[in-house]
Amino acid sequence: MNIRFYNAKILRIKDKSFEVQEGELWVKGNEICYIGDGSDQEKIYQALEMPVILWDREIDAKGNLLMPGFKNAHTHSGMTFLRSLADDLPLQEWLFEKVFPKEGQLVAEDLYWLTALANLEYLTSGITAQFDMYYFQDQVAKACVDMGFRVVQTSGLNNFGGTVEELEEKYLKFNGYHELSSYILGFHAEYTTSKELMEGVAGLVQKYKAPMFVHNSETKLETDECRQRYGMSPTQLFEQMGMYEFGGGGYHCVWFDEQDIDIFAKRGLSAVTNPGSNAKLASGIAPINQMLQRGVNLAIGTDGPASNNCLDMFKEMFLVSSLAKLKDMDAAVLDANDVLYMATAGGAKAMGLSQCDRLEVGKKADLILIDLQQPNMQPVNNLTKNLVYSGSKQNVKLTMINGVILYENQCFHVNMDIDEIYQKANQIVARMN
Amino acid sequence: MNIRFYNAKILRIKDKSFEVQEGELWVKGNEICYIGDGSDQEKIYQALEMPVILWDREIDAKGNLLMPGFKNAHTHSGMTFLRSLADDLPLQEWLFEKVFPKEGQLVAEDLYWLTALANLEYLTSGITAQFDMYYFQDQVAKACVDMGFRVVQTSGLNNFGGTVEELEEKYLKFNGYHELSSYILGFHAEYTTSKELMEGVAGLVQKYKAPMFVHNSETKLETDECRQRYGMSPTQLFEQMGMYEFGGGGYHCVWFDEQDIDIFAKRGLSAVTNPGSNAKLASGIAPINQMLQRGVNLAIGTDGPASNNCLDMFKEMFLVSSLAKLKDMDAAVLDANDVLYMATAGGAKAMGLSQCDRLEVGKKADLILIDLQQPNMQPVNNLTKNLVYSGSKQNVKLTMINGVILYENQCFHVNMDIDEIYQKANQIVARMN
Repeated sequence: MNIRFYNAKILRIKDKSFEVQEGELWVKGNEICYIGDGSDQEKIYQALEMPVILWDREIDAKGNLLMPGFKNAHTHSGMTFLRSLADDLPLQEWLFEKVFPKEGQLVAEDLYWLTALANLEYLTSGITAQFDMYYFQDQVAKACVDMGFRVVQTSGLNNFGGTVEELEEKYLKFNGYHELSSYILGFHAEYTTSKELMEGVAGLVQKYKAPMFVHNSETKLETDECRQRYGMSPTQLFEQMGMYEFGGGGYHCVWFDEQDIDIFAKRGLSAVTNPGSNAKLASGIAPINQMLQRGVNLAIGTDGPASNNCLDMFKEMFLVSSLAKLKDMDAAVLDANDVLYMATAGGAKAMGLSQCDRLEVGKKADLILIDLQQPNMQPVNNLTKNLVYSGSKQNVKLTMINGVILYENQCFHVNMDIDEIYQKANQIVARMN
Repeated sequence: MNIRFYNAKILRIKDKSFEVQEGELWVKGNEICYIGDGSDQEKIYQALEMPVILWDREIDAKGNLLMPGFKNAHTHSGMTFLRSLADDLPLQEWLFEKVFPKEGQLVAEDLYWLTALANLEYLTSGITAQFDMYYFQDQVAKACVDMGFRVVQTSGLNNFGGTVEELEEKYLKFNGYHELSSYILGFHAEYTTSKELMEGVAGLVQKYKAPMFVHNSETKLETDECRQRYGMSPTQLFEQMGMYEFGGGGYHCVWFDEQDIDIFAKRGLSAVTNPGSNAKLASGIAPINQMLQRGVNLAIGTDGPASNNCLDMFKEMFLVSSLAKLKDMDAAVLDANDVLYMATAGGAKAMGLSQCDRLEVGKKADLILIDLQQPNMQPVNNLTKNLVYSGSKQNVKLTMINGVILYENQCFHVNMDIDEIYQKANQIVARMN
């Protein structure tokens, strides 16, 4: 499809800051092929080797904002079935008495529907790619590709499931599976994984000289126990084992000390923060400002819908900023600009999606259209602050992934029956003990 | 207008808990006149003395949820012009160098448009009443009445503006002004108000035996300075001065100690929490769970759009719960049910709107229709948890105040030109130095 957006405000990224350009953005196939004022169109068509007549759609943006889609840099999408099933419980009870027993009853096909449900929610929030750790990854990939959703998967390998051989097999399979699919090495967490398994992961990291991601220092208990077991923090352990030599990073990164931040800064690792989940499960507040000051790449994840429970980047952006201010008791830390960067380009960097990180000619057309003609976006004193501090899913007019419009004016265009997705999700829950 | 909702889930409140009833809800004029299964309609019409044919609209709720509208129990609506104009600053700098100088340039008519803008945003979030403290209160009342929005005003009286006589005049005027308008005694805060002025307010409290609301213990600085000045906390001071004898309460209530909570519990006062503002301005986290345990009536406010910056009850509900969990480092405190009660009936109680607090025959028809056929509301494991933890403005299909539908399917029906409201708000900002 060739799509022309005109009368648009276009959010560009320059040196980790945002600028607004007025004009047109053209999509040819799955790529952005032109950004400019659109004058002298015929000449531009010729230069781009595009016949003038071949627009599939011309969309009047009516002065609204085109911006890069949000990147959800940590989630367990298939946990949609657990949403609101066991909240307001202590973390350990929630995990061991509620989450794990239900997860044990999942079958492969369930993941197709449960992932599809999460993808719908991502689309409503302008999220154009997810970094997913869950089970039955064939079904996850299939659901995403069938819907046109971009997915980066990683492994939740631990003592209770998976082998290093399977991890390698998946790494090779899902990186070549489809243009919407990729895979990053990883495992669940230090506290659920034996030294032997971790050594296996480290072996793959070294073999493929590849980045590695893992749950890292989510809770105080986790870091305390790791220090008891290994005499060092999870980050220091992973570094010592050679797992961070080629990049990657951690999810949560709440209980980081100076040494952990040093390692993340030195290795160019990414810290993916999950403030909604960390607050709701009372895990703590990550030292975001401290990591930012040290130049650590930061990204934002919703975490899974069992802990958050919503998959909404607007809510997460507000939380990232406001929790950082609360943690430091300083309203001046963590500017909206930094948060918006985390939610877009920072996330793309963490996920290995440099081709989708910003609106530029040659980049993949993963973008969203934000309705500025809504009361929460008025007056237009500062666009980035409006997005981070008062933006809402309700402002998402259109979500495009890989050049395809999957969501527009509250309607999904995903080649799946939405009611069937809802029905299947409810049936899966009803079936379980 | 007489409106019949059918095929609805209806959220009822029983003993501070929520129950879902399936059936019909009828609105006659500005009141709810029937809730039931709708069978044997003719008989019901007769009993209600309504002719069968007189439905102005019959709305198929399609299994979606009718619930009481949210009550925004503390705001400064007219601050919409300051949204995103001065964020990420220390609180004192924000207030004295940014907010006050701009506010000084407001003229009366501005408040008409700025309040109207806030009201639009409230409607998108399912908020059906606001408790407003701001300037030019004639214009505020006019904007609300013109739009059909329910408003409870209170005074921001302090050393820099207003007199006790004016407060009394407004109290008398806006309580009889219109059925959508009421007024509660109050002043800005201890730190901005002389003892003499406070004594004047106390005199009115005693004269009218009326409740009184005030900013109370928002920041540590405020409470520290009050203790220096008076040897006691703001709450203790207001109590000693007789201002809390007939009810009312405080906004923020962040830096409360045991004695403050005692007074609130003993006097039946309401604590209005503003978690978005308190987090973003790094003021702290209110002891919500501690107040709940003591039986204090709790309500939720967005605070003004200069500090929050959005006027979204869904975001506030998530924050109330998750910040309380973080404060106590216990994921089990403050159940979603309690938060939903705060956002509806708790707010209504604080605002003196007992006639709008729940869906019951004879109550005012201040209600909203929540779209459950959205991915963030699926599966339907627990409706109240879905609302509090994954709900969003995007789920608000319809907002009705006093029997009138003011917002439906993303469109406003407010007898004002929406574009004109946006234009005026931008012009007001552009005019200022």
